[in-house]
Amino acid sequence: MRTRPLKVALLGCGVVGSEVARIMTTHADDLTARIGAPVELAGVAVRRPSKVRAGIDPALVTTDATALVKRGDIDVVVEVIGGIEPARTLITTAFEHGASVVSANKALLAQDGAALHAAAVEHGRDLYYEAAVAGAIPLIRPLRESLAGDKINRVMGIVNGTTNFILDKMDSTGAGYQEALDEATALGYAEADPTADVEAFDAAAKAAILAGIAFHTRVRLDDVYREGMTEVTAADFASAKGMGCTIKLLAICERAADGGSVTARVHPAMIPLTHPLASVRGAYNAVFVESEAAGQLMFYGPGAGGAPTASAVLGDLVAVCRNRLGGATGPGDSAYAQLPVSPMGEVVTRYHISLDVADKPGVLAQVATVFAEHGVSIDTVRQSGKDGEASLVVVTHRASDASLAGTVEALRGLDTVRGVSSIMRVEGE
Amino acid sequence: MRTRPLKVALLGCGVVGSEVARIMTTHADDLTARIGAPVELAGVAVRRPSKVRAGIDPALVTTDATALVKRGDIDVVVEVIGGIEPARTLITTAFEHGASVVSANKALLAQDGAALHAAAVEHGRDLYYEAAVAGAIPLIRPLRESLAGDKINRVMGIVNGTTNFILDKMDSTGAGYQEALDEATALGYAEADPTADVEAFDAAAKAAILAGIAFHTRVRLDDVYREGMTEVTAADFASAKGMGCTIKLLAICERAADGGSVTARVHPAMIPLTHPLASVRGAYNAVFVESEAAGQLMFYGPGAGGAPTASAVLGDLVAVCRNRLGGATGPGDSAYAQLPVSPMGEVVTRYHISLDVADKPGVLAQVATVFAEHGVSIDTVRQSGKDGEASLVVVTHRASDASLAGTVEALRGLDTVRGVSSIMRVEGE
Ligand SMILES: NC(=O)c1ccc[n+]([C@@H]2O[C@H](COP(=O)([O-])OP(=O)(O)OC[C@H]3O[C@@H](n4cnc5c(N)ncnc54)[C@H](OP(=O)(O)O)[C@@H]3O)[C@@H](O)[C@H]2O)c1
Ligand SMILES: NC(=O)c1ccc[n+]([C@@H]2O[C@H](COP(=O)([O-])OP(=O)(O)OC[C@H]3O[C@@H](n4cnc5c(N)ncnc54)[C@H](OP(=O)(O)O)[C@@H]3O)[C@@H](O)[C@H]2O)c1
Repeated sequence: MRTRPLKVALLGCGVVGSEVARIMTTHADDLTARIGAPVELAGVAVRRPSKVRAGIDPALVTTDATALVKRGDIDVVVEVIGGIEPARTLITTAFEHGASVVSANKALLAQDGAALHAAAVEHGRDLYYEAAVAGAIPLIRPLRESLAGDKINRVMGIVNGTTNFILDKMDSTGAGYQEALDEATALGYAEADPTADVEAFDAAAKAAILAGIAFHTRVRLDDVYREGMTEVTAADFASAKGMGCTIKLLAICERAADGGSVTARVHPAMIPLTHPLASVRGAYNAVFVESEAAGQLMFYGPGAGGAPTASAVLGDLVAVCRNRLGGATGPGDSAYAQLPVSPMGEVVTRYHISLDVADKPGVLAQVATVFAEHGVSIDTVRQSGKDGEASLVVVTHRASDASLAGTVEALRGLDTVRGVSSIMRVEGE
Repeated sequence: MRTRPLKVALLGCGVVGSEVARIMTTHADDLTARIGAPVELAGVAVRRPSKVRAGIDPALVTTDATALVKRGDIDVVVEVIGGIEPARTLITTAFEHGASVVSANKALLAQDGAALHAAAVEHGRDLYYEAAVAGAIPLIRPLRESLAGDKINRVMGIVNGTTNFILDKMDSTGAGYQEALDEATALGYAEADPTADVEAFDAAAKAAILAGIAFHTRVRLDDVYREGMTEVTAADFASAKGMGCTIKLLAICERAADGGSVTARVHPAMIPLTHPLASVRGAYNAVFVESEAAGQLMFYGPGAGGAPTASAVLGDLVAVCRNRLGGATGPGDSAYAQLPVSPMGEVVTRYHISLDVADKPGVLAQVATVFAEHGVSIDTVRQSGKDGEASLVVVTHRASDASLAGTVEALRGLDTVRGVSSIMRVEGE
């Protein structure tokens, strides 16, 4: 066993970073045994140097992250600051100065993963980021390594705990969106500004990362279709229940049936209560993977939180340290397949559409004609009405998103259709 | 990219091996891209050379596995023969001749893992065996690598598909054990001789492997307490339902509360219907992992079958080939913690005990006294009786297996106790 310790620079010491530092200290002996050499916290970069940080030697704390990364003796940089800058520059600087990098930064990885991977390769270093997707759940390593001999066809998951908490509340209590969001905020599950979660920016970043790994293809954040969950209503949940479904915000990465292209999207969707993802409660995450040989796999666990996220960061830290000792690098980025990413219009799925219509004879025939004209085949229709007002709930067979959009536009043009009150995709069947 | 192919010797071409060969051929380009060099099937060892094997070049087929392994130009040996010999000797011979090894052989790994790992280390080669536990489910890599920075406290799983199929049938149809087994046999889920599955030898081998990896400790097959599921009755399922539970054959590897020792055991147990493992249907496998930082994780998927098992074998093959190209070895065996493995008597859990008793006053008091004398605290008692015969169902609080065994022995000695009709552990609460 080597005794010169591997030196770790910790950039950020907030929710995740403080747990990383704590575990590095309390479990130092285990880490040493598993890596084959001791690891030493060589410096901790923060914004507020005077903040008291339990268990952190104040002499290690600095506000000059750049100088820490440039010291030249750092083996591994752990980036848990978050955001684009200064994280991006710090990571590339780390590579330039010979360090490998472990990051939990989904926003940055989704936006600039290609450039960061290229920098890692250029300098012969590792870039690991298991914590960036689904927190503690081992997902990136299983997709990249365990399934390296298989062909992944679909990744479908609940990858944002905040929105799952809100949707689960709406489902179990009948609450509306705002009420459920308020409770999530009060309990600390939602941030003061919940935009990144509820508008699905966070989930979209994760979808881009997952699709890239699953399909060995470069998937940019802009390639991901994104629809938030702020419009989901109690009425949608009631409709879903009527169909034996619930509603989840899903990240879905799919290979087209002909294998020639892929899609990535994030939106609320109805899924059958019998689907394993339907029973994922509270702030938990779960990801369902379908591959050619392995079949259906599911990975489940806490998608966020200081300690769970730190578990993933430390797993990466051990791997990266072992690679350094062995003079090797791990399996890095792989985009050899270079499949085109198709736009949302080419996604094929099922739809649940609620229409407010005039309560008079012939409306259903008119509506059905519009669906038929756009090549969207109807599975079931439910009609209900009173006082001259009526509603129609249509569930379709599989059709392209473009055909559905055309259908909806045409429906809106009908005199007898007062409004399209909700459109929701139906997945997992 | 290197163009000299890596040479793979396939030992065994049955259910799993034939799928490995098929995928190596049909997905050759993907494997090449992911490994960084082509892989070539250099030879296939079987018992019956004349059997027609679709897609396998007859010129590659041999019955002399030893000569194949000794050829000297083999980079990776894939052992999917099964059983102890000749698999064991072939694997050690492979290391001696410079090859790394991928195996799916749980029986061999559980019995001789230590010696095989030592041989791998001695020759600087890899020994990977993701397929040996829970088929396609990535489990060994997540436990060994993703959770390398965490402290695993418990691994509890359904790791045998045959017995889960049988128990699921009994649960859903009310069938008895024999009837459910017959159906499993007819459908090909159980072998003609189902002993290895139903007496839990297979699950015990997997428990030994999982406990060793989870706790960085040598756990031998003899260290695993093993109880099969042939005695589980329809009446047990009825009792379980009354408690909001179902019955599963569980492999449970636990760290003692004081952290100073571990246990590994396999037996049928009641678990609450709300536990994620309760809803694992048919021949699926699932493993629940509890660790200090990550919390509760679950891994779910097909635990057997040719293609799923081949998926795991090929994931290992890619990793081992990459390691070879990089001149490195992966994270191998780790038993540094050297925790003692405690006997079953020290396991602490809850129990569900059914007694046939005389239907007269004072029996419950007598029975309760016996429990109290052995330090086993009672949670609930249900009494029912007719015609001078009565039954008592006792559910205990947590107690050691030794205390429970003492209690049961004393109960059997009571005049008023006609028999102990079932004892089942209650887990997952
Ligand atoms: N929290 C989770 O559950 C979770 C889960 C998965 C992934 N992640 C990812 O993990 C990363 C960190 O998240 P977090 O929740 O730990 O964030 P956080 O609690 O806000 O902590 C951020 C840390 O970075 C420091 N920092 C900010 N700007 C800095 C700068 N310019 N130079 C040096 N230090 C700076 C802060 O210093 P001060 O302490 O002085 O303010 C703080 O210690 C993010 O990428 C996030 O997406 C988080
Ligand atoms: N089947 C599963 O679902 C599954 C799941 C997980 C793990 N595993 C493990 O995978 C391994 C293989 O299982 P399997 O189901 O594929 O077994 P299998 O169908 O019985 O195939 C065994 C293969 O080994 C060959 N063989 C037997 N003795 C040999 C010898 N002395 N020399 C050379 N070849 C010999 C057989 O040759 P012939 O073809 O000529 O008979 C056959 O091709 C076992 O360790 C098993 O525990 C299997």
